[in-house]
Amino acid sequence: TMEFKIIEEIWKIFKRDPKELLGIDDSVAVKLFGKENILVMNVDTFDETTDWLPGLSFYDVGWKSTISSLSDVVVKGGKPLGCLVSLGIPNTLSTESIREFYLGVRDVCKEHGLRLWGGDLNESKVFYASVVSVGLAKKVIPRNGAKPGDVVFSTGLFSINSLAYKILLNGLSPPDRFNIDHVYRPKIPTFQKWSNFLSYITSSIDSSDGLALSLNLLAKASKVKIVIDEELVLDPFFKEICEKIGLDPLRLALYEGGEEYTFLFTVHNEYEKNVLKEAEAVDLEVYKIGYVDQGEGVWVKRREGKIEKVHERGWIQGERWGL
Amino acid sequence: TMEFKIIEEIWKIFKRDPKELLGIDDSVAVKLFGKENILVMNVDTFDETTDWLPGLSFYDVGWKSTISSLSDVVVKGGKPLGCLVSLGIPNTLSTESIREFYLGVRDVCKEHGLRLWGGDLNESKVFYASVVSVGLAKKVIPRNGAKPGDVVFSTGLFSINSLAYKILLNGLSPPDRFNIDHVYRPKIPTFQKWSNFLSYITSSIDSSDGLALSLNLLAKASKVKIVIDEELVLDPFFKEICEKIGLDPLRLALYEGGEEYTFLFTVHNEYEKNVLKEAEAVDLEVYKIGYVDQGEGVWVKRREGKIEKVHERGWIQGERWGL
Repeated sequence: TMEFKIIEEIWKIFKRDPKELLGIDDSVAVKLFGKENILVMNVDTFDETTDWLPGLSFYDVGWKSTISSLSDVVVKGGKPLGCLVSLGIPNTLSTESIREFYLGVRDVCKEHGLRLWGGDLNESKVFYASVVSVGLAKKVIPRNGAKPGDVVFSTGLFSINSLAYKILLNGLSPPDRFNIDHVYRPKIPTFQKWSNFLSYITSSIDSSDGLALSLNLLAKASKVKIVIDEELVLDPFFKEICEKIGLDPLRLALYEGGEEYTFLFTVHNEYEKNVLKEAEAVDLEVYKIGYVDQGEGVWVKRREGKIEKVHERGWIQGERWGL
Repeated sequence: TMEFKIIEEIWKIFKRDPKELLGIDDSVAVKLFGKENILVMNVDTFDETTDWLPGLSFYDVGWKSTISSLSDVVVKGGKPLGCLVSLGIPNTLSTESIREFYLGVRDVCKEHGLRLWGGDLNESKVFYASVVSVGLAKKVIPRNGAKPGDVVFSTGLFSINSLAYKILLNGLSPPDRFNIDHVYRPKIPTFQKWSNFLSYITSSIDSSDGLALSLNLLAKASKVKIVIDEELVLDPFFKEICEKIGLDPLRLALYEGGEEYTFLFTVHNEYEKNVLKEAEAVDLEVYKIGYVDQGEGVWVKRREGKIEKVHERGWIQGERWGL
């Protein structure tokens, strides 16, 4: 995609910092000094041009921008410290809307022990919010550490979001008992809970760009094959609704979701039970969804036993650009 | 101004991080661990809506965005480490323009030992570039440390920029020998040079928002009066041109400049000579421009000896907003 092409161009111009520990498409993790002091940072920008969803409030935008930035820090093993928020503010925007935005930021900060440190405000023709999250880690979890034999886990099932997008973007009304809030105010594990798993984890990524793409990024970075199981990966309620209205839940979950911020991670198989026990002890949803094998690409075992390829696509910035 | 009002609202919502060492209008400096490990960060956004100048190239935008972000880190005593760059990219923008932008970023990075760590790319209706600079300091220089009796120094004279803005924004052609490049590609002292002065400095700020406003921010934070000398503060070539074309150079330099990124700093008077000697030794331009006294506000001693008030105004984001 175009985003990847631009990123490639950029890294022809710059040399990588030798103190940087992760890949160019991962979060930023920089060894500061001493043995276990790694600065983990991530920036994520919400831009109304492409990211606005029907029904989204300014509170939600504040929430979502902060989660999407923080998610990459936490999933890599960074303990949240603080954030900087930059806003582009059209002159039609009320101070009250800006206040609501910051209330959303604040509530995420409160839950995750993140501090607002600063930022900047800019007059602009469009609304955008760029959140930089900063954390510290003793050890960072890379994308490229998955090994054949590992078990693939996730902190949630997929993908209520894919259905929610279909509903929202087509102006439909949600079915009974269908809670669309997760799209507006996604949740991620706190570092306090997540830190209990760090010693077991060989690789990790959040599913911000959709399940198919995120798993492919993990498999490619680790030079392994990932096989997930249709029976294990789908949210049962989501599956039930899809079947009722005649949509293919697997296709939807793989290619049309995104921004779930569910953590996907791999663990050496001898620790599988430890992970499940720990999950129960700290009350964190953790699901085994597949395994890692020698080879390449991502594959899904269908209900009837057939194994199909999961393509490397999903929602990427720039796919819709006219560049 | 409106920007200050919004910032006030924001800090009603959030509690300050007790590990944060500077004021809310200053850069971000956070004590990490140990005695002398302070993370210094600053974010600055270039937005074409308000920041575009006639003649500015994408290379210049990359250069300027990086300098304006880095300047606040260096002036506070932070050794440059790395930066994150977020772009808003209209679909009419060529990959070549983006490449040029990053060449400007790279050249500033090279000069200052800054590394590009990462960032994000976003489709948008406007072009914006948000640069987050990160440094480490053993000790940060606050805005509020100026004491009566201190000497006021600057790393440059004022203000070619104010005249350049007049020329560019009115479509005039620059007079002979008038080099407008500094507006496009401002320069700041390297940390290597600047670090020699840190032990003498009691307070500092860069003149990003213009001379009058920057000095007022310093005086207000330190609860002191600052008196500058018209004879010492004006760039002689700038003064010569102003007088030739009938403009008041002092008024222009005080209120119509900005984005010089000249460092303004105060030093206990017993170190005045050390500063000047050091400046010569490391080949850094340093000018004595005034002194600190008891009282409040900023004042200027005119050529004829009269002392006039320097008002707290200049170019601030949001002044032109319709909020």
